Amino acid sequence: MTVTIKDVAKMAGVSISTVSRVINNSKPVSSDIRDRVLKVIKETGYVPNPVARSLVMKKSQIIGVIVPDISNLLIGELLNGIEEIGRMYDYDILLCNTYGEIEEELKYINLLKSKSVAGIVFVTGKIDEKTVNAIEEGNVPAVYIGKNAKDFDIYSVSIDHEKASYEMTKYLIEKGNKKIAFFRASIEDNIEDSERYKGYKKALEDSNIELDKSIVLQGDETSDSGYMLAKDLIEKENIPEAVFASSDEVAIGAMNAFIDNSIKVPEEVKIAGYDDIKIASMVRPSLTTIKTPIYDIGAVSARMIIKMINKEQLDSKHIILPYTLMNRQSTN
Amino acid sequence: MTVTIKDVAKMAGVSISTVSRVINNSKPVSSDIRDRVLKVIKETGYVPNPVARSLVMKKSQIIGVIVPDISNLLIGELLNGIEEIGRMYDYDILLCNTYGEIEEELKYINLLKSKSVAGIVFVTGKIDEKTVNAIEEGNVPAVYIGKNAKDFDIYSVSIDHEKASYEMTKYLIEKGNKKIAFFRASIEDNIEDSERYKGYKKALEDSNIELDKSIVLQGDETSDSGYMLAKDLIEKENIPEAVFASSDEVAIGAMNAFIDNSIKVPEEVKIAGYDDIKIASMVRPSLTTIKTPIYDIGAVSARMIIKMINKEQLDSKHIILPYTLMNRQSTN
Repeated sequence: MTVTIKDVAKMAGVSISTVSRVINNSKPVSSDIRDRVLKVIKETGYVPNPVARSLVMKKSQIIGVIVPDISNLLIGELLNGIEEIGRMYDYDILLCNTYGEIEEELKYINLLKSKSVAGIVFVTGKIDEKTVNAIEEGNVPAVYIGKNAKDFDIYSVSIDHEKASYEMTKYLIEKGNKKIAFFRASIEDNIEDSERYKGYKKALEDSNIELDKSIVLQGDETSDSGYMLAKDLIEKENIPEAVFASSDEVAIGAMNAFIDNSIKVPEEVKIAGYDDIKIASMVRPSLTTIKTPIYDIGAVSARMIIKMINKEQLDSKHIILPYTLMNRQSTN
Repeated sequence: MTVTIKDVAKMAGVSISTVSRVINNSKPVSSDIRDRVLKVIKETGYVPNPVARSLVMKKSQIIGVIVPDISNLLIGELLNGIEEIGRMYDYDILLCNTYGEIEEELKYINLLKSKSVAGIVFVTGKIDEKTVNAIEEGNVPAVYIGKNAKDFDIYSVSIDHEKASYEMTKYLIEKGNKKIAFFRASIEDNIEDSERYKGYKKALEDSNIELDKSIVLQGDETSDSGYMLAKDLIEKENIPEAVFASSDEVAIGAMNAFIDNSIKVPEEVKIAGYDDIKIASMVRPSLTTIKTPIYDIGAVSARMIIKMINKEQLDSKHIILPYTLMNRQSTN
């Protein structure tokens, strides 16, 4: 495992920018913190990648990144991954925020093409054929991050959501839970098309647990939405043994609804989320969740783009990265 | 008070993009959610600003936004404010992430100038004279968001941090606390220059409480840092009656250190944060904090830029917006 600047920051308990300041001596840092960072750098053997740095191009180039929602906690992590690799190879990043609307996506694709960007990382919920056509017409190297990427002949990075969701549901079943609610954090499309829902359903089937549609609920991607879905079950006295939400924010919202109604988590209801955003480990009880390697997805997509710009060979068009089940307090 | 799309989203318990979808009919939304959103729109009388829309320019123009850290939870909120106003007047936003490093800031300023952007919103921790010179040389309309903006003859939006910090400290004192720790979420500069620290110190003085340097601690802006600072006090058996942290993430980290060491919040230690980021109300106990109107700061700065682009008169160079003390569970 290569140590990244992010690992160093985490181990030293400081931000990435602080580590960067210590390395580049670019801004004042207190001596305590400097010592702590240098100690971690020494212990881990971290070196800012010199091979990468030697490849740096004279002229600074731009990678355009199109995302659906900058204020989404997950997107921030993804951007960090894109940024770190971009900086390493001396690419500037220009960010475009679309609110997930296809008209905005098309507008920004045209804008980036007119600015002659070197490459595009395109992030969306569900990829539309129109956006793929708009990007591919431009002959700009592009990598896509979106749930249906594998339906297209494009470059993409993702994880196997059906498998991850299956594993989490199985984990909850093995803990002795049968009445497991599924909160889907998306109001788009039919739930039957959702990979995460498919994984949940398959795990129940394989354990001979009948699907109970009264506890399969669909809401928005916000914590408020999770709160309302759980509150609804509480009011109907239809309280499940466990709730598996397809997003951490929704899971935390659900958890708060139970806590605020004096229903103990994890004693009376277990809660599991999805993605392992920063706050999943910050809440108490800390949240059991699927850690999607969102920083790595960003880093890998940036690396792919740069390889494409440099006409290097890529091993595969669709890269699938591994996930991890993070076992925390909310289910134990 | 004008109702914004954000207010509608909050009241309906959905995201801004969902409200946008309902209004523009741009993507499928479940009928339940559509009804909820439409109900809120009706109740609040929200209308997408028609005057603004009529001013829309034919040619789409770009506002460049330079920020220190996209993954910072606060920056996401700020960007939402800039974005909403930008969209209303048909400006595209290009975002540049600098990690707060001055070399990066200068690089992106030059990049944006070379792209002939219509305006620049410049966000940083502490504004440096070099960056001000680089921006002002270009004759591009610019608004600055940074703690020392008032030291320069530039356009800026901010809040009175000294006053807000004074008020929070006074509030904790009035709750009967005397031993109030101050966790500063920044390792840059001398703490004596910090407006928030000045407010804290002045409130103690005015209440005849002696400043106890053993509980004035300085760390990074991360929750890990807040955790370590609190853990340090616990280990030294120097536990304060209250902790006032100059950032919510640090406050939540401190709160977790107490909870994990079986010290009850708020019964044994009160905790207060600063900024009111999204997760401040998501954690339990929910966090008492200073709500900085970060979305509004973004919206106002975008509005200023657009007025400057259109050669409209501005009332003042330095806009100071009001804050609110959010009284929640962590101090009650």
